[in-house]
Amino acid sequence: MKSKRSITYAQAGVSIEANARWVDSIRQAMASTYGPRVCNRHNAFAGQFRLDYDEVLFRRNYRRPVLVGCTDGVGTKVLLGIQTGRVAGLGVDLVAMSVNDLITCGAEPLFFLDYLAVHRLDPPALAEIIEGVADGCRQAGCALLGGETAEMPDLYARDHFDLAGFAVGVVEFRRQIDPDRVTPGDILIGLPSSGPHSNGYTLIRKLVDRRDLDRHRDELGETPAEALLRPTRIYVNAAQAVLRRYRVKRVVTAMAHITGGGLPENVGRILPPDCDAVIRTRNWKPPPVFPFLQRQGVTRREMFRVFNMGIGYVLAVRPAFANGVQRILRRAGEQPAVIGEVTPGSGKVRLR
Amino acid sequence: MKSKRSITYAQAGVSIEANARWVDSIRQAMASTYGPRVCNRHNAFAGQFRLDYDEVLFRRNYRRPVLVGCTDGVGTKVLLGIQTGRVAGLGVDLVAMSVNDLITCGAEPLFFLDYLAVHRLDPPALAEIIEGVADGCRQAGCALLGGETAEMPDLYARDHFDLAGFAVGVVEFRRQIDPDRVTPGDILIGLPSSGPHSNGYTLIRKLVDRRDLDRHRDELGETPAEALLRPTRIYVNAAQAVLRRYRVKRVVTAMAHITGGGLPENVGRILPPDCDAVIRTRNWKPPPVFPFLQRQGVTRREMFRVFNMGIGYVLAVRPAFANGVQRILRRAGEQPAVIGEVTPGSGKVRLR
Repeated sequence: MKSKRSITYAQAGVSIEANARWVDSIRQAMASTYGPRVCNRHNAFAGQFRLDYDEVLFRRNYRRPVLVGCTDGVGTKVLLGIQTGRVAGLGVDLVAMSVNDLITCGAEPLFFLDYLAVHRLDPPALAEIIEGVADGCRQAGCALLGGETAEMPDLYARDHFDLAGFAVGVVEFRRQIDPDRVTPGDILIGLPSSGPHSNGYTLIRKLVDRRDLDRHRDELGETPAEALLRPTRIYVNAAQAVLRRYRVKRVVTAMAHITGGGLPENVGRILPPDCDAVIRTRNWKPPPVFPFLQRQGVTRREMFRVFNMGIGYVLAVRPAFANGVQRILRRAGEQPAVIGEVTPGSGKVRLR
Repeated sequence: MKSKRSITYAQAGVSIEANARWVDSIRQAMASTYGPRVCNRHNAFAGQFRLDYDEVLFRRNYRRPVLVGCTDGVGTKVLLGIQTGRVAGLGVDLVAMSVNDLITCGAEPLFFLDYLAVHRLDPPALAEIIEGVADGCRQAGCALLGGETAEMPDLYARDHFDLAGFAVGVVEFRRQIDPDRVTPGDILIGLPSSGPHSNGYTLIRKLVDRRDLDRHRDELGETPAEALLRPTRIYVNAAQAVLRRYRVKRVVTAMAHITGGGLPENVGRILPPDCDAVIRTRNWKPPPVFPFLQRQGVTRREMFRVFNMGIGYVLAVRPAFANGVQRILRRAGEQPAVIGEVTPGSGKVRLR
C-alpha cells in the first residue's frame, strides 16, 4: 500500500484502514505550514503554490525569478532515532538539510515535500515524524506542500524507515549570491550548530555503545541520545535577516552550509581558485558532544573532516560590514562568531 | 559516505574513491537534460533554474505563475528490478510517476531531483539508474537539476536500494485545470499504458514465481521480466499538445494519472460530488500482461482496483471536442480511446 499525501491522503486508501486521528493530525500538520500562497485543492494529484502574490498584505513579486531546488535525506541518523525511539526531531532534520543548502545562494524557501518509506505504516510514529517535518517547515517559513508515504515491508526491515526531503525556493536573478565575489579580506562569520546535525552518524554509531545512549553523562549534562538527536538548526531566518538588511549593498559574498566533509570541504566550496580560507578554531568552543565523541577515539583532524564541530553555517562578508552583520544576526537570535577570514591562496581551507 | 549531486559530485568525496568514468557519465547524463534555463554553478549547494527566460529563441514568461510540486517513488518495482538485473528503466519510472501527476493540473514540468539510497555505491548500477532518470527527464522535457546519493549499509540490505523523485512545474494561474469544471456529458479519453507502470508490484511479486521471470511466455510474446519492467509511459508531450492547441477554449476539464487504486480511484479523484464516471471496459484491450496476471488468480474487480489495466492517463473533455482532441493526440504519437463518459451521479466510478 502506498499513500499519496498533499491533501490526498484520504483518497489513497490509508484513511480507510488507518485511524482517522492520524489522517487528521497529518492534515493539521500540513495546514499549520500553509500561507495564503498555497492553493492546494482537495483530491489534487499535485501540490500548488502561487509564486507571485498580489494581495496587499503579502505582496511578493519577482522580476526575473530563479527557482532553486535541493534534495537530501538525514542519513543513518534515522537508525539512531529508531533505536532510541526519538523520531520527531528527524522531521526537522530533514527540512533543515535541504533548506540550509537552498538559502546559500540567497534564495527564500517556498515549499517542501517529503518522501517517507517504511516497513509498515505505524500511524503514531509517522504522525510524529510528519509533525516534525511541519515544525521544520514553520521554522523555515515554507509550506509542506505534499508528500508520499510508501509501505515496503520487503525493502525495509522491521521498524526501519527512510526519509527524503525536497525544498524549492526562489531568488531574484540579480540578487543571487555568487561566490565568485569572494575576495581576500572577507570575514568568515560562523553560526552555532546544535550538535552533529545530520552528518557523521555512521561514525557516531560505531563510537557510542547502544547501551550507553540513554545513560546520563556529566560531561554532556544530558544523555548521549539527547545530545545526538537534537534537531539540526535551521538558518533561514538569520540568513534572510542579513540579506534583507543589505539588499542593495550585497555585503554577503557567499554562504556555506556545513554538512558532511565539515568546515574544510564546505567552506572550500565557496572559495575561488585564488583564495584560501583560514579558520581559527580557537575562536569558538564546540559543544560538549564533540569532545565527547573525540574521546571515543577520533583524531582532531578527522573530527573536523566529518563533523561541523559546532559551526553549522558560515557567511563570508565584506570586512567593513562584519560588525554590522553580526549585530543583525544577534538581533535575529543568533550567536555569531568570527571564525576566520579569506586570504590569497589556491582554494584551500587551512585550520589554525 | 553521502554524495551530493547536482554539479557537486566531485566535491563530495565520491569521485575520490569511485572511478572518474562514473562521475563523468553522471555529469553527462545530467547535462543531457539541461536547457538554457538551467543556471547550475560548479560547487553550488543547490540547483538553479530560471523561471522567466527572455532570450528570443526560448522565450517563456508567466504573468501569475503557480508552481506545482510532486513527489513519488517506484514502490517495490525496485525489488523486481534488482532480482532481474534490470534497473535502467526504474529511472524512467521514477520521473514518470511524478511528472504524470504534475501535468494533471495543466502544468509543464521544469525540473526534477532524485534521491537514491543504496546499500553500497556500485558505480555501474548507479550510472545505469541515473541515465534512466535523465532519459525520463528528456522525455518529460525537464532538467535533472540535482540529486542525492546516500550510502547506508545498515539501512538497506545487500544490493538493495530505494529511489525517490521530486518534480517541479509551473502553470499560469488562469490556465490551471480545475476538475470542478467537469460536467455530465464530458467524454473520457484514455491513453495506453505500457503495462503495470509502477503500481501493484507487491501483488505482482506474489503472483509471479521468481524462477519464471526470465522464461519466454508465448501469451506475452516475451518474458514476464520484460513485460513487467517496461518503463512507465510519460504523458507530458501528449497532454501539452492538447493544452497548447486549446489554450483559450479550455476543452480539457480534468486529467487523471492512473496509479495505485486504478481507474476507479484515480478517475474518482476528478469527479465533482454530483457526477459519476461510466467506464466502458470493452472500449480498449488491456495488453497481454494483465490477462496473464489475472490468470495467476486475481478477480477482475481486484485487477481494476490494483492495476491501470492498460490505461495510464485519462483526459475529460467537452463532448464537442472529443474528436479534435483525439486527432491531436494521434498526431502526438498517442493511441487514444474513448473509454467512457461523465454522467449525473454522486462521485462514483462505474465499470461497465
